[in-house]
Amino acid sequence: MNPRITDVRLTPILVADPPLLNTQGVHQPYTPRLIVEVETADGVTGVGETYGDSKYLELARPFAEKLHGRQVSDLNGLFAIADEVAVDSSRISGQVDVGGLRGVQTADKLRLSVVSAFEVACLDALGKALGLPVHTLLGGKVRDAVEYSAYLFYRWAGHPEGVPAEQDDWGAAVDPAGIVEQARRFKERYGFTSFKLKGGVFPPDEEIAAVRALAEAFPGHPLRLDPNGAWSVETSLKVADEIGGILEYLEDPALGTPAMAEVAARTDVPLATNMCVTNFAEIKEAFTRDAVQVVLSDHHYWGGLRNTRQLAEICRTFGVGISMHSNTHLGISLAAMTHVASTVPNLHHACDSHYPWQSEDVLTERLAFDDGKVTVPDAPGLGVELDRDKLRVLHRRWLDDDGALRERDDAAAMRIADPDWVTPAVPRW
Amino acid sequence: MNPRITDVRLTPILVADPPLLNTQGVHQPYTPRLIVEVETADGVTGVGETYGDSKYLELARPFAEKLHGRQVSDLNGLFAIADEVAVDSSRISGQVDVGGLRGVQTADKLRLSVVSAFEVACLDALGKALGLPVHTLLGGKVRDAVEYSAYLFYRWAGHPEGVPAEQDDWGAAVDPAGIVEQARRFKERYGFTSFKLKGGVFPPDEEIAAVRALAEAFPGHPLRLDPNGAWSVETSLKVADEIGGILEYLEDPALGTPAMAEVAARTDVPLATNMCVTNFAEIKEAFTRDAVQVVLSDHHYWGGLRNTRQLAEICRTFGVGISMHSNTHLGISLAAMTHVASTVPNLHHACDSHYPWQSEDVLTERLAFDDGKVTVPDAPGLGVELDRDKLRVLHRRWLDDDGALRERDDAAAMRIADPDWVTPAVPRW
Repeated sequence: MNPRITDVRLTPILVADPPLLNTQGVHQPYTPRLIVEVETADGVTGVGETYGDSKYLELARPFAEKLHGRQVSDLNGLFAIADEVAVDSSRISGQVDVGGLRGVQTADKLRLSVVSAFEVACLDALGKALGLPVHTLLGGKVRDAVEYSAYLFYRWAGHPEGVPAEQDDWGAAVDPAGIVEQARRFKERYGFTSFKLKGGVFPPDEEIAAVRALAEAFPGHPLRLDPNGAWSVETSLKVADEIGGILEYLEDPALGTPAMAEVAARTDVPLATNMCVTNFAEIKEAFTRDAVQVVLSDHHYWGGLRNTRQLAEICRTFGVGISMHSNTHLGISLAAMTHVASTVPNLHHACDSHYPWQSEDVLTERLAFDDGKVTVPDAPGLGVELDRDKLRVLHRRWLDDDGALRERDDAAAMRIADPDWVTPAVPRW
Repeated sequence: MNPRITDVRLTPILVADPPLLNTQGVHQPYTPRLIVEVETADGVTGVGETYGDSKYLELARPFAEKLHGRQVSDLNGLFAIADEVAVDSSRISGQVDVGGLRGVQTADKLRLSVVSAFEVACLDALGKALGLPVHTLLGGKVRDAVEYSAYLFYRWAGHPEGVPAEQDDWGAAVDPAGIVEQARRFKERYGFTSFKLKGGVFPPDEEIAAVRALAEAFPGHPLRLDPNGAWSVETSLKVADEIGGILEYLEDPALGTPAMAEVAARTDVPLATNMCVTNFAEIKEAFTRDAVQVVLSDHHYWGGLRNTRQLAEICRTFGVGISMHSNTHLGISLAAMTHVASTVPNLHHACDSHYPWQSEDVLTERLAFDDGKVTVPDAPGLGVELDRDKLRVLHRRWLDDDGALRERDDAAAMRIADPDWVTPAVPRW
């Protein structure tokens, strides 16, 4: 019941992504993801998913080799293996990660982003081998469904003309009316009752107007605004002053713990982050300075589901809230997020998910949102099944790419529409 | 493979304890422990152990009733059940726990001390059901053996005359020579290379002399001194100044986080605690004030093995060391301690254990110390087997007791030898 790992398969893919706008630029028409499969001696296969840019692939390959012959249950050992994998120093610029919008890139964060996919795949395989759902391996669910928020984006109707891309029917959203319409559709289709607006795209006054329009259209619904650190402390405080009363929280208004601590000290509006607290090393300073009131965990870069639970416990211990961040992801990760979220007692906010924006997936059956919630799977493992045909198609797209799309770069994508675009200096406003 | 709980048995026992001295008094000749058995639908039984005083029994009984019919894997759910069990307010005086020497008594700590026994029993049962050792259920061991320290005590040769008690051949230890002799025997019998002296018994100068004698007899061996908060800040600093250079750490020299923080601010000698950081609620103040450098976890009162892992991760995140505290315990708990300790990467100090002092146990086979280490069991569950005959004998002793020994009270035990004894006010020196 504790089989050894006999094979590990890494499949980089490119998955369709709509032209969602953020402060760095726009999502590429296709974004790289990495699908990990761990096969065991008794024929069970577990799946995981993470970022697919080549800096992750470079680490995942030697990591995968080290897994051969190990017990699939040896989850603590994954971190020791990760430490053995060398990180190319050119990959860790000390700069804010482009495309990821998740704080400064470090060797540790790169490693954990890779570990997480293997950890989820091992949990999936172990669960299948034991006949237990992943949430049981995490100590058992404390809720039967996990609530997600509608993730609203300023966006264009389509990617720039002439660029190969999938189409969708969402239309453009570049003003308050467009955002309200998008929210209405999210609510109708999926039942979401919390709304998060990705900001940092337009001058703060326009985004304030959009949030006010949401508050008017959906009275009493939790609202959030996330400019990805694009604002100065003074701008952050101005926004907090103007719309703090209608916000559940303000997410990463300013960049980095010192700036966030200064904002937090001067407003009562709760601050959330997925940019200044992105790994365990960043917690002590942020928590002792009371810089954030809610940490948005992302199991991809915190190093998996068990680390996410550890983070949640640290947050509980320090009186800090916990919820979940999302970047472009597929159903494997949504299942993983749902399993771990179901086991965290102190999860008091709806989690973020890009999943509704993803028209493509690698599962035989998509996960569904009902009343804004995903039912926690009780089947063994993650409770999802890989569709090999779909995987092959998306991998073929990756193979056929000339390299332009294999590294997610939202600024480069923006330059196709606006050749003069440069990543805005921070604070942008 | 995830059976439901069909029966829960609670067996209070009295177990022989030698006349070990501490700042509150002396160990009783027999001390109460509670053995928990969780039986599942497929006939597997898991065992756990915790404190056995009636305030724990009072909570364990309603708690046990609530377990019937639940899945043995639902470990997260144990805490929700615990919250439903009412705690008699007369049990939570807000005073330092007598007998326990583990900080202030609170409802939460009482509940967690009970939960822990059930959590260990459930992990044991689940491991047996799945064919996996408990360390695998905790993510896998990162070491094959766990190191323990020799737990040195000032002691009498025997309990007061006329008091029914078991005898042992350790003899008295009431001065430096006696302590060195005890240490030598510990080293010869069990291979321990770290030594911890329980202090707070004699004036600090005598205990300083004992530590110096140990350093001379065992050069280079890690040494610790633990007066259980008996000293003032000034006395603590004086001791740190005199023998800090030969101590691995000084344990709870002064009582409570404010006093510990003051000592820590004025010495470079690392401070350890199992008295001012005894539950999650106490962490924030202690860690933000840098009051302690090592937390001595005790799975009994932290709420089990999974909580102990959470604590270890919090310590790692805040740059605080972790090791393990011990109170009088039997082999079930030693196995549990060994399993969880084997999974904690940042365990850099030998753990404490009273086990060598316990001549009685409820297992078919005692756990062994080799070179000061206990080999991590790889058999399913905890890897230990309950001896029902031994359990029956110790339970009979509990049944036959008139109540005098059912509540551990080291001051009361001391009054048998010294009728004028009162629990010393703190700080004692």
